[in-house]
Amino acid sequence: MKALVYAGPGKKEVREVEKPRVIKDDDAVVRLLKTTICGTDLHILKGDVPAVKEGTILGHEGIGIVEEVGAGVSNFKVGDKVIISCVTSCGKCYYCKKSMYAHCEDGGWILGHLINGTQAEYVHIPHADNSLYHIPKGISDDAAVMISDILPTGFEIGVLNGQVEPGDVVAIVGAGPIGMSALLTSQFYSPSRIIMIDLDDNRLAESKKFGATDTINSKDAEAALAKIKELTDGRGVDVVIEAVGFPATFDLCQRMLSPGGRLANVGVHGKPVDLQLQDLWIRNVKITTGLVSTNTTPMLLKTLQSGKIQPEALVTHRYKFDQILDAYHTFGNAAKEKALKIMIDFE
Amino acid sequence: MKALVYAGPGKKEVREVEKPRVIKDDDAVVRLLKTTICGTDLHILKGDVPAVKEGTILGHEGIGIVEEVGAGVSNFKVGDKVIISCVTSCGKCYYCKKSMYAHCEDGGWILGHLINGTQAEYVHIPHADNSLYHIPKGISDDAAVMISDILPTGFEIGVLNGQVEPGDVVAIVGAGPIGMSALLTSQFYSPSRIIMIDLDDNRLAESKKFGATDTINSKDAEAALAKIKELTDGRGVDVVIEAVGFPATFDLCQRMLSPGGRLANVGVHGKPVDLQLQDLWIRNVKITTGLVSTNTTPMLLKTLQSGKIQPEALVTHRYKFDQILDAYHTFGNAAKEKALKIMIDFE
Amino acid sequence: MKALVYAGPGKKEVREVEKPRVIKDDDAVVRLLKTTICGTDLHILKGDVPAVKEGTILGHEGIGIVEEVGAGVSNFKVGDKVIISCVTSCGKCYYCKKSMYAHCEDGGWILGHLINGTQAEYVHIPHADNSLYHIPKGISDDAAVMISDILPTGFEIGVLNGQVEPGDVVAIVGAGPIGMSALLTSQFYSPSRIIMIDLDDNRLAESKKFGATDTINSKDAEAALAKIKELTDGRGVDVVIEAVGFPATFDLCQRMLSPGGRLANVGVHGKPVDLQLQDLWIRNVKITTGLVSTNTTPMLLKTLQSGKIQPEALVTHRYKFDQILDAYHTFGNAAKEKALKIMIDFE
Amino acid sequence: MKALVYAGPGKKEVREVEKPRVIKDDDAVVRLLKTTICGTDLHILKGDVPAVKEGTILGHEGIGIVEEVGAGVSNFKVGDKVIISCVTSCGKCYYCKKSMYAHCEDGGWILGHLINGTQAEYVHIPHADNSLYHIPKGISDDAAVMISDILPTGFEIGVLNGQVEPGDVVAIVGAGPIGMSALLTSQFYSPSRIIMIDLDDNRLAESKKFGATDTINSKDAEAALAKIKELTDGRGVDVVIEAVGFPATFDLCQRMLSPGGRLANVGVHGKPVDLQLQDLWIRNVKITTGLVSTNTTPMLLKTLQSGKIQPEALVTHRYKFDQILDAYHTFGNAAKEKALKIMIDFE
Repeated sequence: MKALVYAGPGKKEVREVEKPRVIKDDDAVVRLLKTTICGTDLHILKGDVPAVKEGTILGHEGIGIVEEVGAGVSNFKVGDKVIISCVTSCGKCYYCKKSMYAHCEDGGWILGHLINGTQAEYVHIPHADNSLYHIPKGISDDAAVMISDILPTGFEIGVLNGQVEPGDVVAIVGAGPIGMSALLTSQFYSPSRIIMIDLDDNRLAESKKFGATDTINSKDAEAALAKIKELTDGRGVDVVIEAVGFPATFDLCQRMLSPGGRLANVGVHGKPVDLQLQDLWIRNVKITTGLVSTNTTPMLLKTLQSGKIQPEALVTHRYKFDQILDAYHTFGNAAKEKALKIMIDFE
Repeated sequence: MKALVYAGPGKKEVREVEKPRVIKDDDAVVRLLKTTICGTDLHILKGDVPAVKEGTILGHEGIGIVEEVGAGVSNFKVGDKVIISCVTSCGKCYYCKKSMYAHCEDGGWILGHLINGTQAEYVHIPHADNSLYHIPKGISDDAAVMISDILPTGFEIGVLNGQVEPGDVVAIVGAGPIGMSALLTSQFYSPSRIIMIDLDDNRLAESKKFGATDTINSKDAEAALAKIKELTDGRGVDVVIEAVGFPATFDLCQRMLSPGGRLANVGVHGKPVDLQLQDLWIRNVKITTGLVSTNTTPMLLKTLQSGKIQPEALVTHRYKFDQILDAYHTFGNAAKEKALKIMIDFE
Repeated sequence: MKALVYAGPGKKEVREVEKPRVIKDDDAVVRLLKTTICGTDLHILKGDVPAVKEGTILGHEGIGIVEEVGAGVSNFKVGDKVIISCVTSCGKCYYCKKSMYAHCEDGGWILGHLINGTQAEYVHIPHADNSLYHIPKGISDDAAVMISDILPTGFEIGVLNGQVEPGDVVAIVGAGPIGMSALLTSQFYSPSRIIMIDLDDNRLAESKKFGATDTINSKDAEAALAKIKELTDGRGVDVVIEAVGFPATFDLCQRMLSPGGRLANVGVHGKPVDLQLQDLWIRNVKITTGLVSTNTTPMLLKTLQSGKIQPEALVTHRYKFDQILDAYHTFGNAAKEKALKIMIDFE
Repeated sequence: MKALVYAGPGKKEVREVEKPRVIKDDDAVVRLLKTTICGTDLHILKGDVPAVKEGTILGHEGIGIVEEVGAGVSNFKVGDKVIISCVTSCGKCYYCKKSMYAHCEDGGWILGHLINGTQAEYVHIPHADNSLYHIPKGISDDAAVMISDILPTGFEIGVLNGQVEPGDVVAIVGAGPIGMSALLTSQFYSPSRIIMIDLDDNRLAESKKFGATDTINSKDAEAALAKIKELTDGRGVDVVIEAVGFPATFDLCQRMLSPGGRLANVGVHGKPVDLQLQDLWIRNVKITTGLVSTNTTPMLLKTLQSGKIQPEALVTHRYKFDQILDAYHTFGNAAKEKALKIMIDFE
């Protein structure tokens, strides 16, 4: 079969590799229908994630058709159409029993990282019963792909950790796919205002279509903070979601919090940040971090099925799987190409 | 009346000043029976808290007898024995309605800070109905003084923010009065282990008497962290409470957290700390800060009344009010004097 | 001034009575702009609420202009436009400190019950700072009247007690004003389905306009239950809100719960109901009851201000205050008149 | 092997039956070391649980040594000493993913009910990885047996559903093994008062040893209620746990609730009860029901390991397995025999 393979720092190749097969009783193999590219894939390609060995198939998102199942798989059968979760969960370790699948002792985020991923014609899925999901009627294929990673990430690590409540003022720093997912899913809790903040005016304009009530270009950080004070009667925001991953954006976030405010960090950070405890110790704030557990996937499926949000609108570009290198090129120049999510079809 | 007055950076004096009187309808004046000294008072005396004007009477803890009440005060009458809360609450502003009295728009921590405090024969208490508490039968006077500030601070900002649960492993960094208060009140939730960490072996030994199951001297931070890993099957602690306020202690805290762990900062910090987001972003941790609201005072009173904890044991030294300068001398050399709380009696 | 007065069981009169004045320092007097009639007013008129003495002015909802304030009132001044909460809160008793204003020891629901109410040109409001609310810009007067009682009642006692979550299936039994309020406010949490159940086809049709996804006429209770099973994969509903107050409707509610389901009772019941514990003990259900505390009023104001819901659409009929007897006649024949809320204007 | 078998209403026999073997990959077979008898076993024997077929081996509690495991079992190996949970959990169905193992679609309470149970030399355990637990060092064998059912039942359905908080007044109606388990585990949250209520003075006296602060014989229900009012300043209790299962005891419970109180029903009810909604609708109370999920077993193990409670003290009588009919006789006359839990040893 064909697969997109990490070939060492800075290098990727489409290679012909062996089709995977079921090994353990609770495994499945899925034939891909659609996959997509995540910012993390770009990090891996740069060589920033040394745990990824050369030759690993990339990708941790996608939908497909179950091709083969082990004897112990009971939730799925051959021919079922499924969402592949970016997080693999054994369902029986210390952390899985706490619904913290991100820290599964025999799983977690391993697809396209520690084991072969979804940017291939077939993928091997360990612990299939807890790592795949049926696609209910009424959810489009494109929307279903957004359930693999970005919707639960924006929702669990941004919205739920940030404890968004009806009437809250929410700010989201970073209008990329994850920030947009937080924007979409924060609306489940009816905040009164969602302020989207970014350096890219195009993305800010896009965010209005996804439900932002206000947008601020943070080129001038002080002006941005002044604007936020103005929008919040001088109090600051109830919740701020960091969806970038730089010291400067984190700093912006911590400075806009109201007393009692919550800062939900979603961004992947490469270095320490300065936490202004000399100001914050007195302000009763909460800062959270997290890797997605995808334990809210059943809930998200119900909301999508009932039409609460339309995440398929995050798809800005489409390629066939044999054009995946072009797809990477576009995604690698997301700002210039005005790209959010790139859909890659196998058929 | 006599009062201990801040006389500018580095200076304090016992002065004869005018006795306070009720001004507004919801005020009260309380004749002090007991007061004590807080680490914050030392900070003020150094000149670290510029909001405190020269001439201000220090102190925000104590118990006394109601001397006079305004016409609108309904919870208290002259002659009642009361605890003075370190936080003044109007009961009717934006934050008070959310039980965030720390941020009361006409109160918060103002005693011995923005208005005259409790290290005097009498003190003027605004919003008396929401800022004083009756002392129920069965609570000793010394224990009641601990309710003014350190017990609710350790409990709300340490234990509740840290979400201590039955069976948890809790670490507390800093075995001073606040750390000891967190130690006492964390036992309300039956953690399986409470590890006390400090540089002072005497205080660590004391902490065993207050319920610590393990103690670690953190002179060697790496060894301390190794010991914690050993005590927690390599996972790290569920909750760590920072009760010191230095970059080094904060750093120790963030390095001992398990996935899903909570870091409750109680320490007063004077400068930024490095937050190791490059490690923590993936670990699903929560960091909280806070100034006490004392909204748990009714709950704490019930637990004390039923004998769950004996906070009077935190009192290591006693002085009469006319010896208050000696009391400050002892408290200012707490380590050497093996001092935790200094009780100052007016009678 | 003119007022609608309870004149003993079955009797009401518009009488000329003395205009109220401020008595205590934290009182206010409000000149009414709008009021409305509640189902409870009809109960009182029947003589079902013996605590109401003859001569009491009825009504506990409305908006108006502050006419006079006591010296201790700080949140409001003469001329302010305000919402009158149906619940009076002293802000300083045992229950108010727990945000349970419904059980305020010097308040609770007393307007038009234990003290004179809002169906008059002026009303006396005790504890004004905690019992009145400013009307923020962007909220229509009609919408503001809905904040006095029915919106917080539907929200707190129905939606919050029922713990509605994104993706949930919610059923509401009773499509009167309270049921409709629960319908509107449950949408703050994005349930996937809201099934409205009533005996009146007109009200069911109306409920579709307010956001019901499905409607069921429960004339045939068994058929209704079968339909619910069909809509929920045989599991039953996650949340059911009882907004009627009869044994038969309560029974319907308890029979449609899924394992783990919540039954939030909002209806005012006059007699015991049979609780089917022989079936329910094993089903992990939760049943809640409650009188509104209106502690969510600040949150509701923010959601209204941002346009999340349009409660003014609940107003079906309008009268001038001098037609209040006609207004009562219409409301007393609500089904026939197709009435939900009756707005009564003073100007 | 030998087993205690249900032989139709009113009949039980010790029979020689075939030793179970692993059938599915995730199964295990456990050789029993200890088992015990539950009130439910008596119900089954009376014929009250028609789902139990003649020939079924009774019992759902016990500890043992793993004798055989399927190829897919990863948490346990032959020779491990384990606690058998009364609830079987597949770890991958709709309810298991919500931690509601009680409602597992391929498990739940099936041992000694729908499949053969633990009153036998060996027992077959489906879904072993999620249905067995290792016994950590420091927990006695007798204590471990209490983890199979009664401790998690008292804790989850009584204490957690009742939301016991520090300082609360808790009442427990029924001083049998389940009531005593609720008594032990409610102490994890430091209530100020735990009032044990029963008709049997011996059990009430016993409850004092387990931590009850007050006891009331409810022979005279009105006097009991008066006493509770007296103990709670007239307010009623914060939490009441029903651990009997009769209309009269449920009625007692609902009448002692304070505003905002929680009634956690643990008792197994055979018929409907009267719910006094005409009184309770206004009191903001919560009523919960439930079958144990045992999802708190890991937490309970930690608390036992650290010595928080000594549940082995619930064992009042001991028998060898070949005396199991005598054990049933004693347990069937629990009041007369002053029996709480009967330990049955296999060695």
